[in-house]
Amino acid sequence: MAQQARVRIAILGLGLIGGSLGRAIRRSVPQAEVVGYDSAWGVSGKAERAGAIDRAARNAEAAVREAALVLVATPILATSDVFREIAPALAPGAVVMDTASTKAQVMAWAREILPPETDFVGGHPMAGKERSGIEAADADLFREKPFVLIPSVDASERAVRLALGLVEAIGAKPVFMDADEHDSYVAAVSHVPLVASAALFLTAFESRAWPELAGLASSGFRDTTRLASGSPEMSGDIARTNRANVVHWLDRYMEEVRRFRDLIESASDEDLLKRFGRAALERDNFITSGAPSREPPLKVETVSLSDMLVGQWAARAIKRSQEMLDTMERGERNRRGER
Amino acid sequence: MAQQARVRIAILGLGLIGGSLGRAIRRSVPQAEVVGYDSAWGVSGKAERAGAIDRAARNAEAAVREAALVLVATPILATSDVFREIAPALAPGAVVMDTASTKAQVMAWAREILPPETDFVGGHPMAGKERSGIEAADADLFREKPFVLIPSVDASERAVRLALGLVEAIGAKPVFMDADEHDSYVAAVSHVPLVASAALFLTAFESRAWPELAGLASSGFRDTTRLASGSPEMSGDIARTNRANVVHWLDRYMEEVRRFRDLIESASDEDLLKRFGRAALERDNFITSGAPSREPPLKVETVSLSDMLVGQWAARAIKRSQEMLDTMERGERNRRGER
Repeated sequence: MAQQARVRIAILGLGLIGGSLGRAIRRSVPQAEVVGYDSAWGVSGKAERAGAIDRAARNAEAAVREAALVLVATPILATSDVFREIAPALAPGAVVMDTASTKAQVMAWAREILPPETDFVGGHPMAGKERSGIEAADADLFREKPFVLIPSVDASERAVRLALGLVEAIGAKPVFMDADEHDSYVAAVSHVPLVASAALFLTAFESRAWPELAGLASSGFRDTTRLASGSPEMSGDIARTNRANVVHWLDRYMEEVRRFRDLIESASDEDLLKRFGRAALERDNFITSGAPSREPPLKVETVSLSDMLVGQWAARAIKRSQEMLDTMERGERNRRGER
Repeated sequence: MAQQARVRIAILGLGLIGGSLGRAIRRSVPQAEVVGYDSAWGVSGKAERAGAIDRAARNAEAAVREAALVLVATPILATSDVFREIAPALAPGAVVMDTASTKAQVMAWAREILPPETDFVGGHPMAGKERSGIEAADADLFREKPFVLIPSVDASERAVRLALGLVEAIGAKPVFMDADEHDSYVAAVSHVPLVASAALFLTAFESRAWPELAGLASSGFRDTTRLASGSPEMSGDIARTNRANVVHWLDRYMEEVRRFRDLIESASDEDLLKRFGRAALERDNFITSGAPSREPPLKVETVSLSDMLVGQWAARAIKRSQEMLDTMERGERNRRGER
């Protein structure tokens, strides 16, 4: 019977990201059993009825029991509590991943709280919507989007391979880096835009002329302020766990805005045109050609499956992970139309 | 024969806005003849072949001859030259409109340059794309978007009615205000977002970490920097003709960004959460409910057609405008499925 049981994946936190992971995994890896739990009243049941998970567990501990892969998709600041709650219940050889938008703090918590034999791989899917909650969950949310993977220092290659398998199964593009790099980079491309967007909206909204401004606001204003509609708790958590980087990049951003402002005020029209021109040209290059190429610092793709399975893992854990990998690879082949 | 001639509308400048106006007018008012001209080599012919205009004229003067309505959709700084070029050729009773993103300067040029008997109505369609040029022209560009109308101080009600007819024919929402109000308001909802967007892109792009940043940039970064891809010439012209307002609103914007920055740095997490929360809540209200209601300052809708036609206009001009109005109203009724 145990041999026949489906490989289990647990998802803790069933908001936009957890729910979308559930949908994407259930579609790409139908052989896995997705067990979910959310501490908010009624959400686990809603996720089950909506098909984002196979089955709702009654608490986090119950969800992770027997799970080969545990995905923690709670708000950042809740992650440490979740780690504490699940630590005693994790199956031997279980791989734990998270999805938080900042990583140094979460990696430290994982190191401190999770059992030493647990493999932890930090994850950050660079995808979102201005809507949050299970209602907004979408199996295609991660498609073609970067998904950062940050293996803990002692993570096994098997764990990395499993994380990579997950990222590929949901159609995302894996990007490896370390936690400090990550937190600085996302401050620039994600957290500063968030603050810029909220500030842009509030500058207009808090003016006495807001009724008139709102009547004129069109698609440009809507797009540039879209991120202002994101979950305030998430924005707050991001700022709290990435203060120094966000402040550093906000200072650079304010310098850049001030440079434009001064060019406009001083009628340095030639230089102003050059700045606007540079922004337009280089953004077009970026949109058309994508990111400049960069060697992935970790070449996990070349590790063979048999290499991966040499280790000190308990036979059961090895079997479970092997089943999981097989399952994922089967799903991946199906998805690609191979046999 | 002359009796049978179609009412003529001239469009000068066949970029995104001029081309989109052509497409929208040709679809909604098929009885009008749309004659276009663009000074850039080959563009007029391209617009004709693409069906954005009925016919290309050989120059601006030739385009406006016999035209009942002249739409100037050139770059802002070219508007004064265009006014000078067409002034001698305008038909008696012709109504001239423009589409520039800033209005005080253009209204002054119209007053100084156009013949005193010409009716001028400033116009600004609050619609755009990051792509420019005739290739991006789209008949639906203006649909449900605000279209600001700023009648010159001595514009006739007939002219206002005609401008209003045009705006409604292309599916836009007319908004009346004066030029100074307009220029201040659009600085807040359109020009500051433009600068914020370009500065956001350049902050990331000019960092040494750009290859890594670009690899992580996702939909949030793309949306908030979309306006950075707009035409640099247009952004430059906007800044040059609306300096004081853009600087004023950029100063307010920088204050707001700094407020966020200081809350983040000083770990004022409660207050930070409130700011993010306010932005999210109020933006959602705005997106869901639209602009707070505001009485239109000019109630042109109540003016009857016969009232409009009492005046000193040359019989021919009156007939032409009447044909135009009939044509537009017919188009509008057709569009609504009325008879």
